[in-house]
Amino acid sequence: MTNEDLDRWVREELRSIEQALDRLVPADAPVGLGQAMRYAVLDGGKRLRPLLVRAACDASLGHAEAATRAAVAVELIHAYSLVHDDMPCMDDDALRRGKPTVHVQYGEAQAMLAGDAMQALAFEVLTPEDGSVSPELQARLVGLLARAAGHAGMAGGQAIDLASVGKPLSETVLRDMHRRKTGALLQASVLMGAACGTISAPAWQALSEYGAAIGLAFQVMDDILDVTQVSEVLGKTAGKDMDANKPTYVSVLGLDSALAYARALHEQALKALERSGLPAKHLGWLADLVVDREH
Amino acid sequence: MTNEDLDRWVREELRSIEQALDRLVPADAPVGLGQAMRYAVLDGGKRLRPLLVRAACDASLGHAEAATRAAVAVELIHAYSLVHDDMPCMDDDALRRGKPTVHVQYGEAQAMLAGDAMQALAFEVLTPEDGSVSPELQARLVGLLARAAGHAGMAGGQAIDLASVGKPLSETVLRDMHRRKTGALLQASVLMGAACGTISAPAWQALSEYGAAIGLAFQVMDDILDVTQVSEVLGKTAGKDMDANKPTYVSVLGLDSALAYARALHEQALKALERSGLPAKHLGWLADLVVDREH
Repeated sequence: MTNEDLDRWVREELRSIEQALDRLVPADAPVGLGQAMRYAVLDGGKRLRPLLVRAACDASLGHAEAATRAAVAVELIHAYSLVHDDMPCMDDDALRRGKPTVHVQYGEAQAMLAGDAMQALAFEVLTPEDGSVSPELQARLVGLLARAAGHAGMAGGQAIDLASVGKPLSETVLRDMHRRKTGALLQASVLMGAACGTISAPAWQALSEYGAAIGLAFQVMDDILDVTQVSEVLGKTAGKDMDANKPTYVSVLGLDSALAYARALHEQALKALERSGLPAKHLGWLADLVVDREH
Repeated sequence: MTNEDLDRWVREELRSIEQALDRLVPADAPVGLGQAMRYAVLDGGKRLRPLLVRAACDASLGHAEAATRAAVAVELIHAYSLVHDDMPCMDDDALRRGKPTVHVQYGEAQAMLAGDAMQALAFEVLTPEDGSVSPELQARLVGLLARAAGHAGMAGGQAIDLASVGKPLSETVLRDMHRRKTGALLQASVLMGAACGTISAPAWQALSEYGAAIGLAFQVMDDILDVTQVSEVLGKTAGKDMDANKPTYVSVLGLDSALAYARALHEQALKALERSGLPAKHLGWLADLVVDREH
C-alpha cells in the first residue's frame, strides 16, 4: 500500500458516493423539503460510513449496486441524526460541516421534517422496485440498518447521552453509550457492505469485531479532536462537549490514556481483519484514517 | 352484516393489535426512551390503519403474522408523526388522545428521539429474523411503508401543510396535501394488508382506489369534526385548524359541500371494493366507520 493508492481509492469512491446521493435524494419534494434534505446530506461530511460499506463490499466480493444503495442509506440515517441532534431542543448547534445547520437555514419545523423524510428515504433507497437488488438482500439490509438506527442502537445511545449531561459517567456507561450512539451505525456499515457479498460465518464475525473496534476508536478520536482542534478545522464548534459538561473519553480517561486507547482499538481492528482472511485492504486503510484524521 | 358482527370483529382485532404493540414496542430502551415510545403508541388512538391492514389481509386471504407486523409498523409511523407534529416547532399542541402530548410529558428532546426511534422500529418490526415472514414479503412491505411515510407521502404532505398556513389554497392543492399527508399512509395500510396475501392485479388496483377514497374521506371528516365537535369528544384540541388559519375542506368548500364530498368518497370506496371481487366485508365496514365516526 502507498498513500497514493489510498488517496486514489478514496477519491474515486467519494465521487461515486456523491453521484449516488445526488441521484437518490430528490430535489422535487414539496415546498422546500427536498432542498432541506439535499442541503443536509450533499457536499459535506467525511462519508466514512459509505466508505466502510463499499470497502466491506469489496472485501466480500459483493454486489456493487446494492452496496451503493446501502452506502446512501446509511449516510442518510447519519445525516438525519445530525439534523435532529443540532436542533435547539437537543444540542442547539449553529454550525455543521462548516455551514449553518439545517434549522438555522430552513427553520426548525422544516429541519425536523427533513430529518424524518431522510430516515424514510433510507429505507426507500434499500428497496428499489427495479429488480437491481434481490428481495433477500433488501430485507437483510433493512434489518441491519433499522436495528442500528433505532432504540437498541443510535437513538438509544442518544437517549443515554441526553440523560448524562453534567453527570459523572463510568467508562463502562460511556462505552455503552458510544457503542450505541455512533458505534452501531459504523458497525452496521461494515456488515451491510459484507451482506452484499457472500462470506463465511467466521469472516462475518471478524468483520463485526472490526466494525465494533473502529466504531469505538472513531468516538475516542472525536473526543480527542474536540479538545485539541479549533472549530475551523473541525467544521463544527470545538470544545462543545467540554463546555456542555458532557462526559467524554478525555474527561474520563485523560488525554494521554484516551490516545493510547484509540491506538489499541486500531490494533484490535487490524487483527480482526487479519483473522477474517478476506482481501480487506480498503478496510485496513479506513481503520488507519479513523485514528489518523484531523477532523 | 349487523352492528353486532362489526362490533365483535373490531373488538377482537383491537385486542390483538394492542397485544402486538405491547409485545413489539420495547419497554427496556435506555433511560426513558422506551417509556416515551410506549406512551406515544399504547392505549390510545382509533387504530384505523392497523384495522385496514388486517381487513385487507382478510380480503386477500393473507398471512396473519405478517399482517400483524405490518399493522404495528404502520401504527408506529402514524404515532411517531403525531409526536413530532405536536412539538412546539410544528403544531405546538398539548393534548392528544386525551393525554398530555409526549413532549409535555417527557420533554422536547426525548419526544424527538422517541419519534425517531419509532420510525426505525417500524422497519425493524417488518424485518423479523425468525423466518416468520418471507424475505420477499419483508422487502415489499418495507417498500410500501417507506414510500408512504417519506417525501412523496406523509412527510411531503406535512411540508405542504407547513407552507400553507394562512394562505388561501385551491381545492386541488388541498387535495394533493391531504393525499400525501394522511392519504398515503391509509392507502399503504390497505396495500400492505393486501400484499400479505395473493390477489390479482385488477383487485390490487381496486383496493388501491378504495384506499385513496377512504384516505381522503377520512381527512374531509377530520376537518368537519374539527368544527362540529368539542375537544372532549375529539381527545384533541377542537377548532385548532380554524384558529391556526389553516385551510380545511370546510373553509374551502363550506360545511354542507364537505359533508356531501365525504359521502361521495364513501360511495367511491364501496364501489371499488365491489369491483375488486374480493370477500372484503371488513373493508366495507371500515369505510362506513370512517364517515360515521364522531371523533
